[in-house]
Amino acid sequence: MNTTFLKACRGEKTDHTPIWIMRQAGRYLPDYHKVRSQMTFLELCKNPEKAAEVTLQPVDILGVDAAILFSDILVTLEAMGMDLDFKEKQGPVLAHPIRSQAELDQLIIPDPIEKLGYVMDTISLLRTELADKVPLIGFCGAPFTLSTYMIEGGSSKNFFNTKKMMYTDPGLYHNLMAKLTASTISYLQAQAEAGAQALQVFDSWAGSLAPNDFAEFALPYVQEIIAALKPAGIPLIYFANNCAGLLDLTKTSGADVLGLDWRVDIPTAIENFGPDIAIQGNLDPISLLLPEDKLEKRIASILERGRGAKGHIFNLGHGIVPETPPEKAKFVVETVHRLSKGK
Amino acid sequence: MNTTFLKACRGEKTDHTPIWIMRQAGRYLPDYHKVRSQMTFLELCKNPEKAAEVTLQPVDILGVDAAILFSDILVTLEAMGMDLDFKEKQGPVLAHPIRSQAELDQLIIPDPIEKLGYVMDTISLLRTELADKVPLIGFCGAPFTLSTYMIEGGSSKNFFNTKKMMYTDPGLYHNLMAKLTASTISYLQAQAEAGAQALQVFDSWAGSLAPNDFAEFALPYVQEIIAALKPAGIPLIYFANNCAGLLDLTKTSGADVLGLDWRVDIPTAIENFGPDIAIQGNLDPISLLLPEDKLEKRIASILERGRGAKGHIFNLGHGIVPETPPEKAKFVVETVHRLSKGK
Repeated sequence: MNTTFLKACRGEKTDHTPIWIMRQAGRYLPDYHKVRSQMTFLELCKNPEKAAEVTLQPVDILGVDAAILFSDILVTLEAMGMDLDFKEKQGPVLAHPIRSQAELDQLIIPDPIEKLGYVMDTISLLRTELADKVPLIGFCGAPFTLSTYMIEGGSSKNFFNTKKMMYTDPGLYHNLMAKLTASTISYLQAQAEAGAQALQVFDSWAGSLAPNDFAEFALPYVQEIIAALKPAGIPLIYFANNCAGLLDLTKTSGADVLGLDWRVDIPTAIENFGPDIAIQGNLDPISLLLPEDKLEKRIASILERGRGAKGHIFNLGHGIVPETPPEKAKFVVETVHRLSKGK
Repeated sequence: MNTTFLKACRGEKTDHTPIWIMRQAGRYLPDYHKVRSQMTFLELCKNPEKAAEVTLQPVDILGVDAAILFSDILVTLEAMGMDLDFKEKQGPVLAHPIRSQAELDQLIIPDPIEKLGYVMDTISLLRTELADKVPLIGFCGAPFTLSTYMIEGGSSKNFFNTKKMMYTDPGLYHNLMAKLTASTISYLQAQAEAGAQALQVFDSWAGSLAPNDFAEFALPYVQEIIAALKPAGIPLIYFANNCAGLLDLTKTSGADVLGLDWRVDIPTAIENFGPDIAIQGNLDPISLLLPEDKLEKRIASILERGRGAKGHIFNLGHGIVPETPPEKAKFVVETVHRLSKGK
């Protein structure tokens, strides 16, 4: 098996810099559209064979060093008892947002096998199908990010209702976060048991919080999740998006690897994180539109700036956008491998 | 006149920390709704008497230390020849986005008196009406932020088309920025001549750029504007929103004051900026929902952390949100004054 990704997570020497791409299985790939056209997004998440099929596509097409489970962070909320729907153009909709203790009390901490068994089935299938290819990453949403969907009922511009609860009813907010955290821990434990070889916690909206709020309301729950998963003995990655102002805090998450969005200066992050944390990132997804010569220069610069880190997993600074030509994604993978070989 | 704001911009000693609030004239005030209900948003911008009336409302109601012209950063684009409309719930719409040199060539560098005379009329009126009350701030959008509206045709989630032009046709993008910059310089010069006593450049979307892109495509144009306005001899403020990862760069803008959004740690910014730059900010707008005792603690903390700066103008870290109770805005102003008095 190509273990470059796992080695880099642990800070071991590798013969090239490993790369995978956030949302690497998805809308920019014609092969994905072919599968997706037969069913809704949520049906695809719940169909282990098809979810495994689209998970494998970028491994074969792009040659990435890791596969990441095809799923969505919001399936956890459905498992907890919320109505989840993905509407074309509008994105996720949770019809009955949670804004009171009574509403929160109606949600359960789900048994992951019972409520999210399709995810574990996908993981098992993938481990068989991946065999000796590349490691499989499992994932979840961080409690703060999940809380925004839970409270807003979908996407949000300024997270008004989430912060309103945080500020005006911190007890309720902490109860909600505790429930999300408990659900997340058992979900990730089940993923590890099913065969996930690394786990990433996505905190897509962490960067909407002032540092003091992040420290009080978000970070402790991430720390709790990371600590609970340590005994699984697999690399744990925490990706807080838009985190340039939170580096002092994210470095205390306990994760083996910290993801960096494209707005973060890598040497600043490395200096801040010290010698015990590997990094992942951080090419601006839209820079995949650059002509190849300029794109190669950016890749070279990120590789160069990442050399001081304990370990560096190349990635984009956020999910790949649907408008990306697949051949450009392939070019990025090849270029990262070529430029980092033997360095 | 209460010159506390102007003194703080210049780093002179003040007997209290001055405060104004981004979007202080606006939707959270019933008094504003009363005026706004009689006309569209754009009609209000173009009606000097009514625009002056709503500009003055927060000065009287809240007791802020500065007035800021009621207008919108996008009126510049209309003056350049674009169709501008503000749709309820959807926000600004520019029906014909600019994506080619031919389209760009159709836009003019407007004579501000001819095309934006209503703004200068509002400023003149306000200077008379404000008399010995507080100074008047004029403003504009920064070229990068204006370019996103120009190219996307409205608001955007990831600025795909803007970055696409930047990356695939940098020559065209630089031409577009040069035209925006020339338009902005003459617009601000006209505002200063009409009587604006300080000028703020709003770069609302600066934080969507990786540091190297900000340095190459956005910052030089801000520097050009600031340099061109220096001879006006009034304080110049540059507010780059979501700038925690850009502090090394924004400090070279040439501005007297740098605005900080709520995600920036103030002492980090002060350390980075050094002794020659005053700061403005940075309370999270949604924290105005906090109960008074907790809100006061946050205000005290920001005042405390701002003390090391050359000067500190208290403000929110972004515009006040429509859901804010006006009495909370008033409480913030009173608390900033009370806690900073004599310190």
